[in-house]
Amino acid sequence: MNIFGKFRLFQIVILTMLILSCENKVDKKEQLSHPNLISTIKGIELIKENLGKYPLIDNSIKEMKDYVDPELLKEIDLPIPVDPSGGYTHEKHKRNYLTMYRAGMLYQVLGEEKYSNYVKEMLLGYAELIPTIELHPNDKSYSPGKLFWQALNDAMWMVHVIQSYDCVYHTLSENERSLIEKDVLKAMADFLSIGSPKMFNRIHNHGIWLNAAVGLTGYTLNDQELIDRALNGAEIDKTLKTFKTVDYNDLALKGFNPDRPAGYYMQLDNLFSPDGFFTEGPYYQRFSIWPFMLFAQAIENNDPNIKIFEYRDSILKKALYTALQLTNTDGSFFPFNDALKGMDFTSPELTLALDIVYQNYPEDPKLLDIATKQGQVVFSEGGFNVAKQVSENKAKPFKWKPINLGDGADGKKGGVGILRHGPSSDQMCQIMRYTSHGLAHGHYDKLTQLLYDNGNEILQDYGAARWVAVITKRGGRYLPENTTWAKQTIAHNTIVVDEKSQFNGDINVSSEHHSELYFYDDSSPNYQIISAKEQNAYPGIEMHRTFAMITDPKLKKPFVLDIFNVKSESKHQLDLPFHYFGEIMNISFSHKVMTDQLKPLGDANGYQHLWLLGKGKTAEVQAKFTWLNEGRFYTITTVTNKNTELLLCKLGANDPEFNLRPDPSFIIRQKEAGNHTFVSIVEPHGSKSLTREIVTNPYGDIKKLKVAYQDENYIVADILLVEDTNLRVVLSLNDNNVSKAHSLIIDGETLKWQGPYLQQFDK
Amino acid sequence: MNIFGKFRLFQIVILTMLILSCENKVDKKEQLSHPNLISTIKGIELIKENLGKYPLIDNSIKEMKDYVDPELLKEIDLPIPVDPSGGYTHEKHKRNYLTMYRAGMLYQVLGEEKYSNYVKEMLLGYAELIPTIELHPNDKSYSPGKLFWQALNDAMWMVHVIQSYDCVYHTLSENERSLIEKDVLKAMADFLSIGSPKMFNRIHNHGIWLNAAVGLTGYTLNDQELIDRALNGAEIDKTLKTFKTVDYNDLALKGFNPDRPAGYYMQLDNLFSPDGFFTEGPYYQRFSIWPFMLFAQAIENNDPNIKIFEYRDSILKKALYTALQLTNTDGSFFPFNDALKGMDFTSPELTLALDIVYQNYPEDPKLLDIATKQGQVVFSEGGFNVAKQVSENKAKPFKWKPINLGDGADGKKGGVGILRHGPSSDQMCQIMRYTSHGLAHGHYDKLTQLLYDNGNEILQDYGAARWVAVITKRGGRYLPENTTWAKQTIAHNTIVVDEKSQFNGDINVSSEHHSELYFYDDSSPNYQIISAKEQNAYPGIEMHRTFAMITDPKLKKPFVLDIFNVKSESKHQLDLPFHYFGEIMNISFSHKVMTDQLKPLGDANGYQHLWLLGKGKTAEVQAKFTWLNEGRFYTITTVTNKNTELLLCKLGANDPEFNLRPDPSFIIRQKEAGNHTFVSIVEPHGSKSLTREIVTNPYGDIKKLKVAYQDENYIVADILLVEDTNLRVVLSLNDNNVSKAHSLIIDGETLKWQGPYLQQFDK
Repeated sequence: MNIFGKFRLFQIVILTMLILSCENKVDKKEQLSHPNLISTIKGIELIKENLGKYPLIDNSIKEMKDYVDPELLKEIDLPIPVDPSGGYTHEKHKRNYLTMYRAGMLYQVLGEEKYSNYVKEMLLGYAELIPTIELHPNDKSYSPGKLFWQALNDAMWMVHVIQSYDCVYHTLSENERSLIEKDVLKAMADFLSIGSPKMFNRIHNHGIWLNAAVGLTGYTLNDQELIDRALNGAEIDKTLKTFKTVDYNDLALKGFNPDRPAGYYMQLDNLFSPDGFFTEGPYYQRFSIWPFMLFAQAIENNDPNIKIFEYRDSILKKALYTALQLTNTDGSFFPFNDALKGMDFTSPELTLALDIVYQNYPEDPKLLDIATKQGQVVFSEGGFNVAKQVSENKAKPFKWKPINLGDGADGKKGGVGILRHGPSSDQMCQIMRYTSHGLAHGHYDKLTQLLYDNGNEILQDYGAARWVAVITKRGGRYLPENTTWAKQTIAHNTIVVDEKSQFNGDINVSSEHHSELYFYDDSSPNYQIISAKEQNAYPGIEMHRTFAMITDPKLKKPFVLDIFNVKSESKHQLDLPFHYFGEIMNISFSHKVMTDQLKPLGDANGYQHLWLLGKGKTAEVQAKFTWLNEGRFYTITTVTNKNTELLLCKLGANDPEFNLRPDPSFIIRQKEAGNHTFVSIVEPHGSKSLTREIVTNPYGDIKKLKVAYQDENYIVADILLVEDTNLRVVLSLNDNNVSKAHSLIIDGETLKWQGPYLQQFDK
Repeated sequence: MNIFGKFRLFQIVILTMLILSCENKVDKKEQLSHPNLISTIKGIELIKENLGKYPLIDNSIKEMKDYVDPELLKEIDLPIPVDPSGGYTHEKHKRNYLTMYRAGMLYQVLGEEKYSNYVKEMLLGYAELIPTIELHPNDKSYSPGKLFWQALNDAMWMVHVIQSYDCVYHTLSENERSLIEKDVLKAMADFLSIGSPKMFNRIHNHGIWLNAAVGLTGYTLNDQELIDRALNGAEIDKTLKTFKTVDYNDLALKGFNPDRPAGYYMQLDNLFSPDGFFTEGPYYQRFSIWPFMLFAQAIENNDPNIKIFEYRDSILKKALYTALQLTNTDGSFFPFNDALKGMDFTSPELTLALDIVYQNYPEDPKLLDIATKQGQVVFSEGGFNVAKQVSENKAKPFKWKPINLGDGADGKKGGVGILRHGPSSDQMCQIMRYTSHGLAHGHYDKLTQLLYDNGNEILQDYGAARWVAVITKRGGRYLPENTTWAKQTIAHNTIVVDEKSQFNGDINVSSEHHSELYFYDDSSPNYQIISAKEQNAYPGIEMHRTFAMITDPKLKKPFVLDIFNVKSESKHQLDLPFHYFGEIMNISFSHKVMTDQLKPLGDANGYQHLWLLGKGKTAEVQAKFTWLNEGRFYTITTVTNKNTELLLCKLGANDPEFNLRPDPSFIIRQKEAGNHTFVSIVEPHGSKSLTREIVTNPYGDIKKLKVAYQDENYIVADILLVEDTNLRVVLSLNDNNVSKAHSLIIDGETLKWQGPYLQQFDK
């Protein structure tokens, strides 16, 4: 049992003592006062007394009213569940819970009975419906719900409904309460816990939603059994139809502690790394932070002695701050793994999480900067304080900073390195993903590059192929192209060997491995560096990628040097794609463009989706490719030889439903490569003003890039800049000890340095 | 001689009298005080006394300093002109004049001698260079310059240099002045007038630049001959190498008054319609408004008795307001004809024009709204007043409104109809272009649709194929694809007959014709309508297009009904493209997608540039096509029959230099069509939130669209909306008299109405 397990046990003991001892226990009457989940009597009072004073609160009320008031005019409809996501019954029950939640909150802050009556009518309606329904007839989910096709949606329904019940509790008669509690709340909480044991105990974003739904219900009904299940898991009845085994890395099945139930603590212990990185990636970190925070606040309000916000070295606080660091300066989450582009920190999940962190940890004025952009708050004490202090101009600018985040419960299953330079108004941000697989929503690519600059996505991760909630796109579910394109390695900015995805696209294999940090350093004013190795993506091949974001007063802008070293005894074709965004401005190498016919680049593993637009070779020792993105130029300079081919592609082949975005890519293909090192620079430069029609520096500042020396242990890259400044970079490939002394003779001169990386301007 | 000619003659007489009579004349000393072009002693004093007070002024100074200060550290270079646009000598001389202008202004407002010294050194340098150079060696222009490949750029150089001279005049010795005036200013003014007679007298945006350059020089040097040339044109010496005849609609050659010189007045009379619409289109309206306004302000400051701002019913004021109405609500100009996307009203040209209009007409607080977005002012009295009053919060919201603008000097050469609905924060804007050709920058398409909504371009005009100022894109000049794609009719949202462009792409033919307004009405609260006919684009074919933007309390959003009636005795293939922006969400008709090979749609007239992605037919009487743009859905519903094909295309075939944007299009193809009417609706609907993952109304509100009746004189369209509301629209095709009574029997019922258009909700 590790230290966190011990801590949990301690909590359980304390909790049991509290339950047994009325003197030490939180006062029973207090517990039964409502609302007391996220919104509390005190929080609501503060808001009611200050209506009209703080825009974030007034905006939130207005948006809720805009949503709810038209719904109140419609006839209530609680259809028998039949449709999958996007279909009528699905969307109707979803709208019902979204409306109930908002109506409950509006009743609390405005006191208007039309809102509480609406919630009551809904609850009584569900009390009639729910006892009549079995599992949802759509059988696409391995963990089906009752109201929805998957239990996840039932849990989301529950999380909203229980809060709305909490809000209107005092308007209901004893009979109404007992009917609703029995046939709606307890019934659904039982279904989501002991009725859905596999999902309830699963370490997964769905699991935490079920845990939170059941826990919030437990606190509202004052039902300790539900609370215990939520915190510690439910007994697994493997005979239930809803028990299926589909998970990867499922700790409950793999000897972690097979007979032990799971629950909230286990989710907290395992889904986050010690740095607060959520293993499924930022998009799902955003999604799951909601139930994590909701349940935490409910625990704090009802069982403050648990001190849940201190749990695991304040892991909940880290979860929020890390989520915020996993965004571009426009607030959008880095889209690796399954991720929908455009999701950002103004989402309701992050709004809730921020308000809860603001309430339960020392108040951080930098969070108010984010809250200002969110434009809303939740109706809690934290939300009130955020709204008030934003109005009082207490916000300080949020800082994005270079960071290396470990993955895995122990933080040692690879990670994500983020290099950043410049103010948030014009920042370059270079990300390398070298994580573990990331459960079912993980993609197979390791050592992947993402690049942002000037607020824009420059080298993208495609994210997921899905239009969530769009019924005309297969009901909003993940699309076939998510598997055939988005998860394939060629869809990412990393090496593909022999046109096969890493780990051969096998999640069972990929889930067994992770990349290894080689070193990370953000301490120098002249560079930030992240370097990692991957041994398992292709049998017999070692991949080692190093990114240095290089800055210097001699340079107009920082650039990214990318040394991607491949060790292999056999010969292979290596493809290194750059999925850029922008318009092609210049191609330095001779090339042929397909003018009157396009064919796909390949026929499997994602290659079937790429139209080959053009193909080039060069007799030079380097190739340059320049594009324009939002008024700034970007150039890739890469070292080439006679076996290098340069491919220009565009996404869209074999896409009969137009599910893919037509995004472009530039691919460096090395044929018959054994040991090979890709050395490249991505460099922002110059500008093009649309309204002034002035262009500056369209060619960039890198005159020449070459490998000056290479052996088994070292690689030396020389970069000649305009104005004849030379920059030399030396990388030790097999010794990452920061205090190790190295020496190397290059062109007759002895170079001495310490540590795995050396950078020198020689003029 | 028309009334404007008479007015000009009157002005010349007055001017002559003023020159002859010292008593009546503006005081000579006053005239010689400097600066006195746009910036005046009084304007500069106001600015100097208020430094640090008004952000628009301080921003302007800061931007100038950011530009100039690094230049001061560089060695001055005045290379012998050899390069075309984008090349070193071109860009250097351009940067020289941009720096001189800013340095002159900075000297005036800050008084620092480093700025005046820089200008002096430059001017003396040019005094050495200019006497040594002949015509520019690059012979691509029919009107070559000396410093640049075309005289246009020399004129732009002159306009800036003369202002900088005006600013530092008092810092120069008599000897320096006389050297600079003789070898730089007078020499270049002579070259740009009598030395470039064809261009100087040409009715064209280049012409007005030359006129203004010479006029400003005339006022600065107090040289009445130069002023007269600028106002009234120069004698045409047809033996000069720089005299060539290349223009279309050239009034000087076509009997307008062949022996009469041209100049500023003729430009004012002919380039603008009485509504202030510039015949080359909005992009060039923006470009030419600069010299128009500059010269006007210089005239006003030096010859106030001319009352230039009252000329032609205040045409200069109309020119600005019309330019502003020719923008989307984000400020970007409508991109028909040769036009670069992204040019907007924050450009320096519009900033200058606004400040000058603000000074010389009654102050309009709605202009301050635009000025706030511009963020800068020019250093004139107008600029000062704008900056001051913006700081005093005197701005009122600028209003975009429905408008129909006539084209041509008499306003009767077709025009542009703009329908608008909604506040500027979420406005639908439907434009029909039915103009004359628009000189050399005109495109051939008539009756073209452009559509904006929610701040975004929904149905686009491609604009021009050019990356202005980008040297790697053929020196920033117009690209071959501007001719092979951008000017072709298939690149526009209007009918193409038999895959040939309108007027067969012959500018000589197109320039002889224009479309005719049928009617325009923005008086109804329920609809706005624009209807026009084109008789000449294809011999033997009459095209008549009508757009109604329909609004009603019954409708969630307005939509656009498009009735495009074609009369032809012979059979043809008719293509009606919709160049939409967004991602395909739904296709109602059966279709085949080209999954593993793409071929161009055709082989000439722009068709060679379109990849055919998919092809559909439908057995239904209508087809629907839905896409998503920035969180809102759009659906085209169109009436179909067995001869209708539906094509999905994407731009990019036969584009060996990647000069074209890969934009998508949806094309309705009617085969074997004689008389045929396309009846379509473009409808915005619903929403998709990226951060809330909620989708509303993905199918839209148009259930059924059909032609209920049609004969030679009438067409009746019935539109069935959701909730079974029916809307009937009746259009009279051959009588646009608004008071004419009509009656028609449809399905046994007699319909009576008055005027060319009837719209009825029958439920």
